[in-house]
Amino acid sequence: MEGKVESLWEEVRELSLGTTVDRLHSPPTPLQFLRGFVSQNKPCIISNAISHWPALSLWPTPSYLSAALSSSTVSLHLTPDGHADALVPQPSNDSLCFVSAHVQPTPFPQALDLIRRPPNHLVAYLQQQNDCFRTEYGELESDCDGHIPWASEALGCLPEAVNLWIGNHLSQTSFHKDHYENLYAVVSGEKHFLLLPPTDVHRMYIKEYPAAQYSYSQEKGEFCLELEEPERYVPWSSVDPCPARGNLKQESLKFPLYFNGPKPFAVTVKAGEVLYLPSMWFHHVSQSPGDDGCTIAVNYWYDMQFDIKYAYFNFLQSLPCRSIDDPTAPESECEEDLGPHASPNHLNCRFSGDESATTNVEIDKDCDNV
Amino acid sequence: MEGKVESLWEEVRELSLGTTVDRLHSPPTPLQFLRGFVSQNKPCIISNAISHWPALSLWPTPSYLSAALSSSTVSLHLTPDGHADALVPQPSNDSLCFVSAHVQPTPFPQALDLIRRPPNHLVAYLQQQNDCFRTEYGELESDCDGHIPWASEALGCLPEAVNLWIGNHLSQTSFHKDHYENLYAVVSGEKHFLLLPPTDVHRMYIKEYPAAQYSYSQEKGEFCLELEEPERYVPWSSVDPCPARGNLKQESLKFPLYFNGPKPFAVTVKAGEVLYLPSMWFHHVSQSPGDDGCTIAVNYWYDMQFDIKYAYFNFLQSLPCRSIDDPTAPESECEEDLGPHASPNHLNCRFSGDESATTNVEIDKDCDNV
Repeated sequence: MEGKVESLWEEVRELSLGTTVDRLHSPPTPLQFLRGFVSQNKPCIISNAISHWPALSLWPTPSYLSAALSSSTVSLHLTPDGHADALVPQPSNDSLCFVSAHVQPTPFPQALDLIRRPPNHLVAYLQQQNDCFRTEYGELESDCDGHIPWASEALGCLPEAVNLWIGNHLSQTSFHKDHYENLYAVVSGEKHFLLLPPTDVHRMYIKEYPAAQYSYSQEKGEFCLELEEPERYVPWSSVDPCPARGNLKQESLKFPLYFNGPKPFAVTVKAGEVLYLPSMWFHHVSQSPGDDGCTIAVNYWYDMQFDIKYAYFNFLQSLPCRSIDDPTAPESECEEDLGPHASPNHLNCRFSGDESATTNVEIDKDCDNV
Repeated sequence: MEGKVESLWEEVRELSLGTTVDRLHSPPTPLQFLRGFVSQNKPCIISNAISHWPALSLWPTPSYLSAALSSSTVSLHLTPDGHADALVPQPSNDSLCFVSAHVQPTPFPQALDLIRRPPNHLVAYLQQQNDCFRTEYGELESDCDGHIPWASEALGCLPEAVNLWIGNHLSQTSFHKDHYENLYAVVSGEKHFLLLPPTDVHRMYIKEYPAAQYSYSQEKGEFCLELEEPERYVPWSSVDPCPARGNLKQESLKFPLYFNGPKPFAVTVKAGEVLYLPSMWFHHVSQSPGDDGCTIAVNYWYDMQFDIKYAYFNFLQSLPCRSIDDPTAPESECEEDLGPHASPNHLNCRFSGDESATTNVEIDKDCDNV
């Protein structure tokens, strides 16, 4: 089985993906986009697709944003280290849990200050994923297009959600996938993506982790991490592609399929560029701020087709996976629980569309974050 | 493994295919076609797409065709029973071989007579698959469109091959798949298709059979069947979905995954209708003639994308398959030999794109025949 799965990783690259992500220097026609990328489940970067957005010149001036949103209260995500929706050790026993940020309603100007000038041991990130651009940030709507016209025409619908992301160099998002076609437009700074196709699912070492939540005490200036009650488990990737210095060897031994397999596609999306991130692709995201001290992006989530590709993916994921380098390791089954009758058309599909997993506490989040 | 493969069969139906083939009452736009069908690898039948073809009124008059092609010599395929590109017992030992028709250059008017008034023990079929409509039948070109405009625009290319098919009620094509997107237009009579998606590959019991060839002696009025020399093996489906009366139970025991699994999609394509038969779908074809005693069709083969769907298919096919109903049966591996570097862009891709399998003798054939 392992050899066949490895052949699949290679074949999808040799047949279709190549070794780098395609760059288009102007927006594709809807047919070109659908035929060459969506249908093939293949990413691309598009330049000169948002050059006309007023946002590109306006938003890198923090005073503009603070003035435009002077009376807005926004959902600020707080973590001690920039790792939200990530695996961290439990305080009690050092085994890993899946932790979500503390969400603090905050006046926008204050939130922006916190992001741009991060105090010690506090990383702030605006990364709400509940269509926030059209709600919390409604005042900015005229600075961007409400949708990506050629993508909407190709996909035959308008975006299900549009989200604004404002972060700094400390935030990063761990590997995950979304059940959406994603058009990700960077307005200021740069976003760094590591991408793996859905065929590489076994390289993600997805396991169930207990869900936990940061809560931040402003008085003490401290985070406390608490497991959710009642217990809830979230399927999440065990792989950190950028382990702390000195940990690489150990991590490679733990996750050989990831570290010894084909390199992930590494792409940097600069201000003014758009990434088409196909549905079901695994992505890890980090960022570099622009001169304004922020990385700002707007992403458009379009409904995906739950078609033969999705059925193939579920089948692949259901197969037992075992470390190639450690054939004595026990097989683990990485079943995804999204049955065909589950409604895919709501936010918050991460690894599982099963609402019992990622659910309501996090209903406003997916995690194209960082 | 078997349970997971069965779940795949069901899931692709529940998510995407449903239980019947979609019918469109007018041609789709290129975007609708690409989004709703090609990208999803999902068939459909389209009415009113070829109503403007002169062929629809002209061709059902045999005298018109004979006059238009009065001086044409065409490649007539002869078999004793209408089964070409099919499995038949070897005369020597009763084990099965894969037999191809005797191909006889024949003046068109005579060929048409033979098709319309089949003599005993001789079934004639015009089913050349080497772009014959634009070569052998060039005189008819102005009776049809040279391509299907909305399909060409969707797929971003013109057809690689256009073929004419003229047969009678006796011809049928055994289960196979093609590495093309196929637009199949019926001009006279009806075509009956049994369709299975690529995800059902294990239900086809594809095995290697020795290639054989009918040769017909006009003097004796007899066929003789000869194995090819040197020996050549062709991967082909073992399943006959329409076994002779009394044989069903026995066939069901031999091929339980086919007979006990989900029913194939059964569609009848009538004169004036077009079937979109997606690449990689298994299809079995039979036909009913119109009042002219013939079934006439034109099909357009467009290059397919060798993308993630194709990589998934190859992976699935590479997995060992074992009868669910007979878990003691030995596992058989149904590897397809088409490596990523094989050129897919030539005719004659059946089960294998490997030229060593289906090859040159048959270079002018695929087998959407019947």
